[in-house]
Parts: sequence; structure tokens; C-alpha cells
Amino acid sequence: MYKEKEKVEFEETCQLFINSVNNYFGHLTGEVSQTSVPYLKTVDNVMLKDYTGMIGISGDRKGFVYISGDTNLYKELVTLFLDIEEPSSSDLLDMAGELSNVVSGNVRETYGKNFMISVPIVFKGAPEKLKFPKGVPIYVIPIKWKSHEAFIVIGLN
Amino acid sequence: MYKEKEKVEFEETCQLFINSVNNYFGHLTGEVSQTSVPYLKTVDNVMLKDYTGMIGISGDRKGFVYISGDTNLYKELVTLFLDIEEPSSSDLLDMAGELSNVVSGNVRETYGKNFMISVPIVFKGAPEKLKFPKGVPIYVIPIKWKSHEAFIVIGLN
Repeated sequence: MYKEKEKVEFEETCQLFINSVNNYFGHLTGEVSQTSVPYLKTVDNVMLKDYTGMIGISGDRKGFVYISGDTNLYKELVTLFLDIEEPSSSDLLDMAGELSNVVSGNVRETYGKNFMISVPIVFKGAPEKLKFPKGVPIYVIPIKWKSHEAFIVIGLN
Repeated sequence: MYKEKEKVEFEETCQLFINSVNNYFGHLTGEVSQTSVPYLKTVDNVMLKDYTGMIGISGDRKGFVYISGDTNLYKELVTLFLDIEEPSSSDLLDMAGELSNVVSGNVRETYGKNFMISVPIVFKGAPEKLKFPKGVPIYVIPIKWKSHEAFIVIGLN
């Protein structure tokens, strides 16, 4: 069973991801993002949006985090940062990797060496099913930036 | 540029994955697997088979490893280990996670605490594109067990 102490720890981790993503958008784009209250997901098959940057977590706790968003969110970021008006699919994949890497990298800095992250792996589109291991609690944090929607999904033991 | 020393190190890592996967099949199923020589993949978009168990690597080196195989490979393993004749899609997802976890866990034990692994995340089917970050060398190791084909893909800095 998922215990109270672990729940509190997990919610602290979610808060670090929320701060990190809001800092990212606020500082780098000049336009703040809104995040909604994280909710615990019980169903395995979490919906993915157009582009997803996924990062493995290891150390004291083990799991995964991903940020998934619509094409237009990443398009707008590429245009803003790289001044490319018509980004290629490869530019968007790189941007999705970069966003998840920077956001997770900041959380990693707060936790120190017992919270380690892999490189990001990125998909365009979604596989038929996506599953975290049994017993790994999964939180979802909805993000809104300008008119674009995205979310952070964290599965962590 | 990808240097000679790193190439040698990477090939040693591939050898550990080869030993680990061959031990897995040899010891647990009684039927040995054959692995082919690892090859360096230069194209980003690596093909996936029906089920894929993916694990993040962090520590001194950062990356990802996944094992991807056909439905019938995982079906046969579930039937053998759990005595389930008609495994559900969920059983097969769990089996794909388990295979990648055990194989990577053995490599992790050889390397010790500077080679850390996340939990496995598993997909059924493939997203439209899958991309490792730029500059991460990717090796592919083909596996054959009975009539089934699978492969290990390792992207590691």
C-alpha cells in the first residue's frame, strides 16, 4: 500500500517539478506557465500528446518522468529560442528533449547525487500502450503555457 | 567525435549486456539464445518490435537501454514462467519490463554504484518517431531465441 510518508515525499517532488517548469517558462520565455494541482493516476495507460521527452530516474528512488506537449508548444519554443520560423520534426524532438532535460536537471540539482537522471529519450506520437511497473505511484501535473497544454508525468518509487 | 577509448568502453558494456541476456535465456528457459555482433547505429529512428521495455541509465555515464521483441517471444516466456496459456496484453507488458529489468540489473551489478538504472517503462507498439539525444552513440545487439527475434538497443554517453 502507498503510505502517508511516501505520499508527502512524492508531493514534495511534484512541487520541485512544478517550480522547475514554472521557472523555465517564466525566466526563459518571459511568459509564465500555470500548473494545476498534481493528481495521482491509477490507470496505467497514460495519454501522450504529440511530443514526449522521457527521462529515467535512479538513485535512492527509481522511476521515470516525462513531459508531453502539443506540437505548437514546441514550435513556439523553437521559434523563440532558435529563431526558426518553420521548425522541422527533428527540431521539435530536440526541443522536447531539452525541455524535459532542463526541468529534470533543476530538480536533480536540488536533490543532489542521490537523485540521478538519464539522458532524455524523445518520441513523436504515441505507442499503443505505455505502462509503468506495478506498484509505482504515478502523478500527473497539468501545465498551461499561453494557449498550449502539456503535462508532466512522474512515476517514482 | 566518437573516440577510440569510448568505443572500447562501449563495446565492453555491450559484451556485458550480451552475457546477461544469454545467461537469462540459458539459465531461466533452458534454451540458449544467440546474439549477433553489436553494430553502431547512426540513424536516430530505431525500429521497435511489438513490446519494448526501456530503462534509463545514470551515474558516471548516462543513457538508455531497451529490449524490444515480438509478441510471441514474450508469450512463450509468460507461458513458461507463469504457466498462463493465453497471456493478456498486460501480462506481456509486465514480461517485457521484467526481461529488460533483469538483464540490465545484472549489468548494473557488475559495474556497481556508478551505473544506476531506473525502473522499466514498457510500450506496446511504437510511436511515430523515437530519438536519442544528439551525440549519444547507439549500439544494437540482435538476439535470437528459439524462432523469435529481439534486440537490445543501448544509447550511452
